[in-house]
Amino acid sequence: MSKQNLFAQKAIALHKKLKGKISVVSKVAVKTPLDLSLYYTPGVGAVSSYLAGHKSEVRDFTIKRNTVAVVSDGSAVLGLGNIGPEGAMPVMEGKCQLFKAFANVDAFPIILDTQNTDEIVATVKHIAPIFGGINLEDISAPRCFDIERRLINELDIPVMHDDQHGTAVVVLAAMINALKVVKKTLAQSKIVIVGAGAAGMATAKLLLLAGADDVILVDSEAIICRRRVYTNQFKSEIAKVTNKQNISGSLEEAVKGADVLMGLSKAGLFKPEHIKSMATNPVVFAMANPVPEIMPGEALKAGAAVVATGRSDFPNQINNVLGFPGIFRGALDNNVKKITPEMKLRVAKSLAALVKKPTASHIMPSPFDKRVVKAVAKAIKG
Amino acid sequence: MSKQNLFAQKAIALHKKLKGKISVVSKVAVKTPLDLSLYYTPGVGAVSSYLAGHKSEVRDFTIKRNTVAVVSDGSAVLGLGNIGPEGAMPVMEGKCQLFKAFANVDAFPIILDTQNTDEIVATVKHIAPIFGGINLEDISAPRCFDIERRLINELDIPVMHDDQHGTAVVVLAAMINALKVVKKTLAQSKIVIVGAGAAGMATAKLLLLAGADDVILVDSEAIICRRRVYTNQFKSEIAKVTNKQNISGSLEEAVKGADVLMGLSKAGLFKPEHIKSMATNPVVFAMANPVPEIMPGEALKAGAAVVATGRSDFPNQINNVLGFPGIFRGALDNNVKKITPEMKLRVAKSLAALVKKPTASHIMPSPFDKRVVKAVAKAIKG
Repeated sequence: MSKQNLFAQKAIALHKKLKGKISVVSKVAVKTPLDLSLYYTPGVGAVSSYLAGHKSEVRDFTIKRNTVAVVSDGSAVLGLGNIGPEGAMPVMEGKCQLFKAFANVDAFPIILDTQNTDEIVATVKHIAPIFGGINLEDISAPRCFDIERRLINELDIPVMHDDQHGTAVVVLAAMINALKVVKKTLAQSKIVIVGAGAAGMATAKLLLLAGADDVILVDSEAIICRRRVYTNQFKSEIAKVTNKQNISGSLEEAVKGADVLMGLSKAGLFKPEHIKSMATNPVVFAMANPVPEIMPGEALKAGAAVVATGRSDFPNQINNVLGFPGIFRGALDNNVKKITPEMKLRVAKSLAALVKKPTASHIMPSPFDKRVVKAVAKAIKG
Repeated sequence: MSKQNLFAQKAIALHKKLKGKISVVSKVAVKTPLDLSLYYTPGVGAVSSYLAGHKSEVRDFTIKRNTVAVVSDGSAVLGLGNIGPEGAMPVMEGKCQLFKAFANVDAFPIILDTQNTDEIVATVKHIAPIFGGINLEDISAPRCFDIERRLINELDIPVMHDDQHGTAVVVLAAMINALKVVKKTLAQSKIVIVGAGAAGMATAKLLLLAGADDVILVDSEAIICRRRVYTNQFKSEIAKVTNKQNISGSLEEAVKGADVLMGLSKAGLFKPEHIKSMATNPVVFAMANPVPEIMPGEALKAGAAVVATGRSDFPNQINNVLGFPGIFRGALDNNVKKITPEMKLRVAKSLAALVKKPTASHIMPSPFDKRVVKAVAKAIKG
């Protein structure tokens, strides 16, 4: 059995043994009739009456102030595609574990049995009262854009699709430090993003906001430019603000002379020839999971100056866990109603700043670095 | 300040200090890159792929096998009425605490921002995949009947409105033992139930199933009989199977010569004269919370042979916590898809049997009696 298969078998066995990775516990013992009468009836009745008359104080009396829903419809689970609710469950439970481990957020998985946009929006709205935030997860593009936009508009708690913004924030942080290593600037770099799904689109937008001037997206067909006609309105929109020179063609065309090649797509898509055609000191982020667009060794051999992946077993891991726990920690603690683009920029810069002297093999802080959540939460507060 | 007000203030202060009574925790430590890669990516991907292909095994790999949603729309919270989602939150959190404390069930509160029947049914269906059971709570009649019926039909996990069936089961258990004390039988007793909401209707049905022959319901207007015309279809239905003699009139008429007077209504509704007009050795259950239909001392003075209330500070507490934790424990452990009337009967009989020799002041086991959950869960299994 391959090393990869052995690891998969180990993960499967471990999950079968655990039978669920999270648990709901009482914060206090309920052992006596007095406990019962204070936490439940009749005592709780006084709290309920009070809250019914003081709705704005609900965060001071309930789990709302520390609780996030991790919502998925199973339509784009990891790199596995539309595998449905059952396949989504262990991932969302895992995400809830990370929320707790890294930021002491009480997160609960909400797994939807529908992939209809209207139904998802209605369902999340209807269950929102107990939650202090909504983390949308592994919902496929382009529905994810609509769903997130509508929920942000209609709810008074922060809503974030992590595949978009969590990724964008962490990628921008890595980019800031990678460009420091190669002594280039965002404004002067030609940046090619391969993959125009949730993560690619959001990353492109955040890079532009951060000062990048020449960002080119490549989808599964070709370069996104203003000459193509899109059925997907979000691609039409992004075509207007990216690809300054309005170039067209394939990945090969896009990558020529690029300073940064970034993959948010699929295994093995990048070839050494791509990297060889880039500008001097090329930066390569190959973030497909679990198998990157190009293996780091191969990218370095082809001349890449800085290489990052999504994996923990190579240097420079670009991992969302650097972002979402602190983002929601900061939002919950400061009663933030919306995660703004400015907040995302601040988070990315704060994350980057945690690495004092970036080098080719060290552009990102470790997820286990205790400063990470604090810095990110503080950046949300502003 | 009265004793009752002091207690209320204490409960409010305690809730404000706790800021939420439950928490979501990881069952294992997530402290190393290896933990991260086994519980989250890439390891979890193997589990997700496996489950996508083996959907029926989801209970063996996720929290589904031990997790219940406590769902409320805040329309009938305790005896406080339609106080909305904010007021419902502390009660549902409390219920989740009890699920954990008494039966080690992981329960999570789902508080709805809608009171529309269709929307509630759709929402609960859409979020059902991660849950192994649905406990509907504090949803007002008659909507609760429709909502429960539809969800039971459309979901493949057990759905139970606890205000109906949890109450009915525990009341029947108490009734079995109370009648033992006064040496009467269910079949020969005239039983008057005052209050034709969720609890009253379900209790009437379960008593009939258990062998009661003469059950009379009284709603806020009068005796439910076949001469009245109802806009509420559930009252028309119950009128067909209760009130054998088809008597009509007020509570005064109903209670004359009754063996059992049971209140699931509101404070102070029963007068000593009511009890004095009953048959010999009358049984009085005054279960309005927090203030019963008649105080136990007054009922005993008026001649009641056995008195029970919903309160922990008097003998014979009739408390749902004797039922729901074990009912869902049994359902989850045995992969029960529906809670049947036969199961409810078995649960009531098992609960009653835990009190070997019932006396006038001891007809029910304590909620803290460790045998309770085991006996109830076993009765669900059958």
